[in-house]
Amino acid sequence: MTIPDALAELSTLLGDRLSRSKSDLDLHGRSETHFAPTPPDAVAYPETTEEVQALARICARHGCPMVGWGAGTSLEGHGLAVRGGVVVDFARMNAVLEVNASDMDCRVQPGITREALNTELRATGLFFPVDPGANASLGGMAATRASGTTAVRYGTMRDNVLGMKVVLADGRVIRTGSRARKSSAGYDLTGLMVGSEGTLGLVTELTLRLYGQPEAISSAICAFPDMGSAVDAVIATIQMCVPMARIEFVDQATVEVFNAAAGADLPAAPHLMVEFHGSDASVAEDARRFGEIAGEFGATGFRWATLAEERNKLWKMRHDAYWSILQSRPGATAIVTDICVPLSKLAEAVEETRADIAGSFIPGPILGHVGDGNFHAILMARRDSAEEMDEAKRLSGRLADRALRLGGTVTGEHGIGMGKLGYMEREHGAGWSVMGDIKRALDPQDLMNPGKLVPPA
Amino acid sequence: MTIPDALAELSTLLGDRLSRSKSDLDLHGRSETHFAPTPPDAVAYPETTEEVQALARICARHGCPMVGWGAGTSLEGHGLAVRGGVVVDFARMNAVLEVNASDMDCRVQPGITREALNTELRATGLFFPVDPGANASLGGMAATRASGTTAVRYGTMRDNVLGMKVVLADGRVIRTGSRARKSSAGYDLTGLMVGSEGTLGLVTELTLRLYGQPEAISSAICAFPDMGSAVDAVIATIQMCVPMARIEFVDQATVEVFNAAAGADLPAAPHLMVEFHGSDASVAEDARRFGEIAGEFGATGFRWATLAEERNKLWKMRHDAYWSILQSRPGATAIVTDICVPLSKLAEAVEETRADIAGSFIPGPILGHVGDGNFHAILMARRDSAEEMDEAKRLSGRLADRALRLGGTVTGEHGIGMGKLGYMEREHGAGWSVMGDIKRALDPQDLMNPGKLVPPA
Ligand SMILES: Cc1cc2nc3c(=O)[nH]c(=O)nc-3n(C[C@H](O)[C@H](O)[C@H](O)COP(=O)(O)OP(=O)(O)OC[C@H]3O[C@@H](n4cnc5c(N)ncnc54)[C@H](O)[C@@H]3O)c2cc1C
Ligand SMILES: Cc1cc2nc3c(=O)[nH]c(=O)nc-3n(C[C@H](O)[C@H](O)[C@H](O)COP(=O)(O)OP(=O)(O)OC[C@H]3O[C@@H](n4cnc5c(N)ncnc54)[C@H](O)[C@@H]3O)c2cc1C
Repeated sequence: MTIPDALAELSTLLGDRLSRSKSDLDLHGRSETHFAPTPPDAVAYPETTEEVQALARICARHGCPMVGWGAGTSLEGHGLAVRGGVVVDFARMNAVLEVNASDMDCRVQPGITREALNTELRATGLFFPVDPGANASLGGMAATRASGTTAVRYGTMRDNVLGMKVVLADGRVIRTGSRARKSSAGYDLTGLMVGSEGTLGLVTELTLRLYGQPEAISSAICAFPDMGSAVDAVIATIQMCVPMARIEFVDQATVEVFNAAAGADLPAAPHLMVEFHGSDASVAEDARRFGEIAGEFGATGFRWATLAEERNKLWKMRHDAYWSILQSRPGATAIVTDICVPLSKLAEAVEETRADIAGSFIPGPILGHVGDGNFHAILMARRDSAEEMDEAKRLSGRLADRALRLGGTVTGEHGIGMGKLGYMEREHGAGWSVMGDIKRALDPQDLMNPGKLVPPA
Repeated sequence: MTIPDALAELSTLLGDRLSRSKSDLDLHGRSETHFAPTPPDAVAYPETTEEVQALARICARHGCPMVGWGAGTSLEGHGLAVRGGVVVDFARMNAVLEVNASDMDCRVQPGITREALNTELRATGLFFPVDPGANASLGGMAATRASGTTAVRYGTMRDNVLGMKVVLADGRVIRTGSRARKSSAGYDLTGLMVGSEGTLGLVTELTLRLYGQPEAISSAICAFPDMGSAVDAVIATIQMCVPMARIEFVDQATVEVFNAAAGADLPAAPHLMVEFHGSDASVAEDARRFGEIAGEFGATGFRWATLAEERNKLWKMRHDAYWSILQSRPGATAIVTDICVPLSKLAEAVEETRADIAGSFIPGPILGHVGDGNFHAILMARRDSAEEMDEAKRLSGRLADRALRLGGTVTGEHGIGMGKLGYMEREHGAGWSVMGDIKRALDPQDLMNPGKLVPPA
């Protein structure tokens, strides 16, 4: 009953789709942020639910950890096999299985990326809106309860996953949810699995809610005299129920990176980036109302993008922000914070964070999905400087404290992985022990992504 | 370690707020539908979370079942103490604790009813939209994952509970969720508790999402030549994204009851009842678009209600439908079905159901929240006729089969209780056993509303 025994059987099951090549192990042992590389013992590339089930049974028999893997873009070391074992990469399970245009839903395999899904949907007139910037997989997005720029309008993965097929630690396969729009038939297992970060099971299918592609889309970026005005403009916009499809804040440091990395020529000031979806008339009206509100808070230099090409350029700049910011400080690694607070506390949270970082010796551009009360500071520390790493962690801890003090959460969308484990007790109190109870009930051997999310056994 | 031992201690804890009067036991031993009366051993009226916690600890020590009680309007025998023990009635915990107007949320105790809550909110310009017709308690609504006429616009309790305080079977008190609009901080315990029907814990506080009271509201009722046209009009309306606040179907049998019971003079035909929320302009435009679509399916005899008084009369008639229907057949009890299917299958589901009931010897008016794909047949059987009760159960079983065959659920909003237990295995397969695992993890002694929702131990 050892990991090598499991790998021998898995190799019989999967043939050369069980990889032990160094490059594969290294690729699946790295994380996007500051966590130390941790290569697994093997990488599996299953092609069917049945194979995942067989894999889970083998791993259960031999006590071998199983860690799901989508696109590897998560930011808290979610996918690192910290107790060894096998990483289950869903790259070969990336098909769209069914699109129901009249019910506006679809069934997909977990390995498909959001960009590939939307490319496949293009001709149907429908789209899947959740957009974490990175070209993440739908399985990974469900596992982290991802959201992103469009959550203010379309919700998060919590709202947009209707059902799943999941392989549990003991090899049971369950189907959660249904294609009905609502149900009261027992515990919400879909909701339990969304955000469980692969610690309760491996997702092999997802049923997703789709939306009609908007007739008209219009985007804009505009500058504000200071951070406070930009944030206040957001709060006013949301409170006046202007139906924003996106409303993103980027601080001056981020804008300077845009100018340097993406060849933009924006004034060195905090900006909002916005988007409207609807009919030609409604988009025009929403834009007008937003312009009016933003104007009251001193917005200037509006640049509108209505052509797809211009819009794509704008949002590519935003989506690449994380990488561009990292590149702006060679040798640095990122500690990404992700707090989310009630809207009425947003100005306070952002302002305190700005002051905190200004008083520190490491840089931390601030940007985020402010329509939800969610923002990030990308704290950049040199990996080889213990002093800088400590300082980044201190700032990150202060952000977490701030979020909790203001009635919010330490992670609006990135999840716990290992990076936020230390805050779980404070955020959830006894609730965290309940998460541990649930974990033990479904995975008593602690084989599904061990070392993440729940209290250490 | 017996129930009497528990009651002795509870009586010390609560004084005369532990009631053993026959009338109280009878009142808390009845259900709205066909289940046999089952009085508990006692009824507790706690006033604080701390009291509920002390109660749970006493019950845990003595192996005494605890069953939550809100307004007692649930339809599947949810609140019956089938293994005896204490019913915990939240009538004295009915305060609004906090309203955050700028974040559009509030914190309430579970015993407050939705009507009382909305009365308290009136002056704030906000309202809580979930509307199960009956004047249910917020705790009961969360426990059953209720929805109702407005879910098509505002979602169900799943979408509108942001957090909870819950007392678990072992006396642990947890706070789930936060006031942030989204979070990825671990398992969604709020989502797990919503719809758990009191089998995982007693809810002592809820944080709810609120909405701005619409500037303008307009309601209407109109007739259709037949059921198929009415249902097709609904499907077209939803698919064309007309933002309906309510869209309800009532069949001819229901309309005849309206005429008899509420003094209406509607033509004997299937009808749709609709409502629009928004600005004066948007309501007018939405109404125009709906009128156009409905017209294409043969709608006639539109009656509009824009004054509050007229609207209230219209919706009171709808909300009283269940009781009026029951009264139309003296001596009968109701077996209420509640299937929900994908919209594209709605016409088929309704049509087959109609034919089934037409071929039966018991009456069953059909009505429902068709914008969600959810509808009810109120099957009326004489309680003293085994033949009629069997026939009603047969029809109900066929409805459940139909829902599952069409990709839907056996209960869109009422929940499982005891009445739908027999369908859980078929709807969820191995998923039902997972619900049992979760139940055992949080309530190993099976004290929280035993005999409901999960597989029998
Ligand atoms: C530049 C950049 C910007 C980002 N912006 C956002 C943002 O705006 N919003 C946001 O929410 N996130 C954002 N992220 C984080 C990341 O994109 C999300 O966390 C995303 O959901 C991860 O998906 P993935 O496919 O890369 O998952 P992975 O990193 O591969 O895995 C994430 C977790 O999911 C588990 N998992 C993966 N697939 C499965 C499966 N099939 N079954 C069970 N478990 C599985 C893994 O074990 C792991 O625990 C950003 C990341 C980057 C690099
Ligand atoms: C005429 C009529 C129309 C209806 N229409 C609808 C409709 O359109 N949509 C809909 O969804 N439902 C409808 N219902 C059903 C009913 O109103 C809902 O199920 C409602 O949510 C029940 O709330 P309650 O307060 O009456 O709960 P109760 O009946 O008192 O309890 C329901 C369940 O919740 C548990 N519970 C109650 N309070 C707590 C608590 N604080 N903590 C833990 N568990 C608790 C109980 O143990 C029980 O299992 C209707 C009922 C009637 C009579």
